[in-house]
Amino acid sequence: MTARSSKVIELTILSDEANDIADALQEKIAENDSFIGADGRPLITLKQISTRLEDVNAQAVTVMLADPDLASRIINKCTALTWCQSTWAGNAPLLTENKTDYTLTGLKGVFGKLMREYVFAYLLGHARNTKAFEKNQRAAQPKWEASKRIPLNGQTLGIAGLGSIGQALIPVAHAFGMQVVGLTRNGKEVAGAKAVYTPDNIEEFASASDHVVNLMPDTPTTQNMLSQRFFNALKPHSVFINAGRGSAVDDDALLQALNSGELAHAVLDVFRHEPLDPDHPFWKHPNISVTAHTAAESQPSDVADVFLDNALRYINGEPLKYQFDFEKGY
Amino acid sequence: MTARSSKVIELTILSDEANDIADALQEKIAENDSFIGADGRPLITLKQISTRLEDVNAQAVTVMLADPDLASRIINKCTALTWCQSTWAGNAPLLTENKTDYTLTGLKGVFGKLMREYVFAYLLGHARNTKAFEKNQRAAQPKWEASKRIPLNGQTLGIAGLGSIGQALIPVAHAFGMQVVGLTRNGKEVAGAKAVYTPDNIEEFASASDHVVNLMPDTPTTQNMLSQRFFNALKPHSVFINAGRGSAVDDDALLQALNSGELAHAVLDVFRHEPLDPDHPFWKHPNISVTAHTAAESQPSDVADVFLDNALRYINGEPLKYQFDFEKGY
Repeated sequence: MTARSSKVIELTILSDEANDIADALQEKIAENDSFIGADGRPLITLKQISTRLEDVNAQAVTVMLADPDLASRIINKCTALTWCQSTWAGNAPLLTENKTDYTLTGLKGVFGKLMREYVFAYLLGHARNTKAFEKNQRAAQPKWEASKRIPLNGQTLGIAGLGSIGQALIPVAHAFGMQVVGLTRNGKEVAGAKAVYTPDNIEEFASASDHVVNLMPDTPTTQNMLSQRFFNALKPHSVFINAGRGSAVDDDALLQALNSGELAHAVLDVFRHEPLDPDHPFWKHPNISVTAHTAAESQPSDVADVFLDNALRYINGEPLKYQFDFEKGY
Repeated sequence: MTARSSKVIELTILSDEANDIADALQEKIAENDSFIGADGRPLITLKQISTRLEDVNAQAVTVMLADPDLASRIINKCTALTWCQSTWAGNAPLLTENKTDYTLTGLKGVFGKLMREYVFAYLLGHARNTKAFEKNQRAAQPKWEASKRIPLNGQTLGIAGLGSIGQALIPVAHAFGMQVVGLTRNGKEVAGAKAVYTPDNIEEFASASDHVVNLMPDTPTTQNMLSQRFFNALKPHSVFINAGRGSAVDDDALLQALNSGELAHAVLDVFRHEPLDPDHPFWKHPNISVTAHTAAESQPSDVADVFLDNALRYINGEPLKYQFDFEKGY
């Protein structure tokens, strides 16, 4: 063990959730002997904690845990910065700044566990018809009635985009007795998926699925990929969930397909323009559930976990996880 | 293979869902070569299909697939009966009749897969706060807002009653990153449960759990087992699900605990008197979800699967699965 090295972290937290993150950090640090030095002093001290740019002394920043949109506005003044752990998965705001002489790490490995809860909350809510039971209960005269249900067991879940988040859904689908098919750029085999299709075969992918969840990132090839061809190949009992990017969906084609019964329900977390325009027809559609880009929002505790995992590596002089490459831009 | 035996089944179906079960059977029989005899003729023919007692010729019944409440009213006249496959798990109505010179089999092995969808539909609905998002969406002015969520990941599910149905929840809980503790009569170790408590330690069981689902059968020892002691040991964020028997719960203690914030929400599928009295306070309580004893209702397709599995054994002269013992009464 090299945990008793002399490298210490004087941390600056700059985030909308700075205080919650600081609380989570302090709790976790207190429970872990690895963050106590040979001399009994803490290896991590929280030096600056703020939700506001103005409160941060940029020259004093050495290690920073920060929202990239906030950090990008002071990063060029942080002359002593060695490492910035971002609170986001993507880091576009920081990747376009001039400063590149520090280690930038992203927030990864925490979204799959949140996404699988979102996806199955809505798939199961639909399968068990929880809204109908709620309506029966809250009627002026409550109704004791067996509303229609279609089990997920035996059905097939289609996952468009089988990166780490998409793959996190597979064991859960299997635990519910579902099979999994995938849609990826290259159609390469993925463990646990009985078939993986490419965009050329998107109709076959849709036909093979009972329900589809989109988790594809926003790239030129994914834009409008989920169009009329795709929606019309779904089943009248299908649920479509979009938790990838709004740009993948042809909004009009989705509405038309819902209205003509090509699928049963859509659950939408991401949109072409966010927040979703109050006048957008998605809001009022009875067969659409809208959520506020909240499917896989990391919790302060997740941010603290990823930071501390990397902090231990930093203290021990080991390479950090989830590093960004400024030249490649990802 | 002895599938080419001469034993054939002339089936009587007597059930509220006789027609749906018959449709499911015919579809599955058509897909399976095992049900064609050496002479090319079917080994199973559907002879009488009815939802009404009056339509059944009791003397002509040899093999019957039936709801036990209906079957019990003609069983003593079924002099040629050799086997009755029940559509229920329990068979109280048939076990108290005089006739015992036939094989009675129950419906088993199909409830776990339905129960796990029910339990996680409600746990995830609560964890993801789907009602708050729905309310935001359906407001006169729709709200784009991140309502509070508490992930299941990292939490502990307490399961009271770890028979085949309770155990079916364990792999799903694990797939969501939850741990499992159990409560059983004997406290014996169960694979996948990190601890199993006995009724003497019910408060420790409750304290060890974030959420609890009751699946215990109705026995003298389980009656009122879930009382004030139990509910007060839950957590302010706990969800309690009762899908076992209503008699296990002290209704007043549950209401009191909900009202004083000892737990967050209750999901109730079973009650002391069913259907639940329209004036019962459970209906109107904002933190109770009522369902209509529908958590694990078998589907016609499940009934068909269990029947056909046993039918193949019957045709081949092998012992049937899920047999009842008239002397023991279970």
